[in-house]
Amino acid sequence: MSNFSSIFNELVTELAKLPGIGRRSAERMAFHIMKTPAAQAALLARKIEEITKLVKPCQLCNNFSTADICSICSNPQREKDTICVVEEPKDILAIEKTAHYSGLYYVLLESISPLEGVSEEDVDISRLIERLRSGTIKEVIIATNPDTEGELTAQFLIEKISPFAVKLYRIAIGIPLGTQIEYIDSSTLGKALKDRRAVT
Amino acid sequence: MSNFSSIFNELVTELAKLPGIGRRSAERMAFHIMKTPAAQAALLARKIEEITKLVKPCQLCNNFSTADICSICSNPQREKDTICVVEEPKDILAIEKTAHYSGLYYVLLESISPLEGVSEEDVDISRLIERLRSGTIKEVIIATNPDTEGELTAQFLIEKISPFAVKLYRIAIGIPLGTQIEYIDSSTLGKALKDRRAVT
Repeated sequence: MSNFSSIFNELVTELAKLPGIGRRSAERMAFHIMKTPAAQAALLARKIEEITKLVKPCQLCNNFSTADICSICSNPQREKDTICVVEEPKDILAIEKTAHYSGLYYVLLESISPLEGVSEEDVDISRLIERLRSGTIKEVIIATNPDTEGELTAQFLIEKISPFAVKLYRIAIGIPLGTQIEYIDSSTLGKALKDRRAVT
Repeated sequence: MSNFSSIFNELVTELAKLPGIGRRSAERMAFHIMKTPAAQAALLARKIEEITKLVKPCQLCNNFSTADICSICSNPQREKDTICVVEEPKDILAIEKTAHYSGLYYVLLESISPLEGVSEEDVDISRLIERLRSGTIKEVIIATNPDTEGELTAQFLIEKISPFAVKLYRIAIGIPLGTQIEYIDSSTLGKALKDRRAVT
């Protein structure tokens, strides 16, 4: 019979692979799971297995989906002539929560990162380009992160998309709501000044 | 076929039940799991199920164990005449990491909490008292948390254990190493002054 500390450590090792979970948090989670009724723990286990089996990338936009085409691409209510390009499916969740966007998405899944050896060739935009060629798209919004990788990727996208007859946008980068100017890092503040918006 | 958002939300709900995991963290974890190879996710799921099936309380001390008697109680190297009383099995892990203790443990599993309706009767110390009666124990260290519940529980233990011919200790409460006195809350600092230790 395997002993307690090896079973415990195996679970902690697996939990610590989750994002933002260090060894200490993983230990707390493992202790919690051990105190949980077996049926409750089994439910969590089943949901973890289920999601990797049932979820796959949408064939149009790479968003997570249980069907070939995701619920956003197949929704007749969405504006079909606008595409918002994001790095990850989780960015879609964040944008959907704002309720300020009703177009379609394209998920890159990779962003250009010279440090991690991810180059332009690794970022698959073939299906995005295909849709631009089809002529049905009027507007593209680049919503990559405002960090090194996201900015490099945005530059790459601008280069590839600008030959097409579409309006091309980058989401606004500036000081976030609810913050105080004195505490904003100077790169962001500089960018906010440079990108100042005319109000009259 | 169930749709993506219901599968996603079910997993997020289960993950958010883990300690210290809010809805946002649970969402990040769920996105991570979806990007994980199915075999990797299945491994995590299996470890979660396994631990609740294989782990049970030690019949002597309530520590988590895969056997009837845990690895500490059954270890011939441990000092059998000393018992450290803790609230939770995770406290044992913390104390073992210090390498400053080589006796046995007793895990209460509950601490007295008038707010949560946990009274003295709910704290099962029957097997601890049994061992004290047997006369083999020389020393008991009360290592409950220095919070309201832990202090109430410590008082209760002192009351129940003091009739026995054992040395009874409470772990030292005071200012933690590596901190600065000016930043310590005044209750702790007051306690540290009250419990000052003679050095000459």
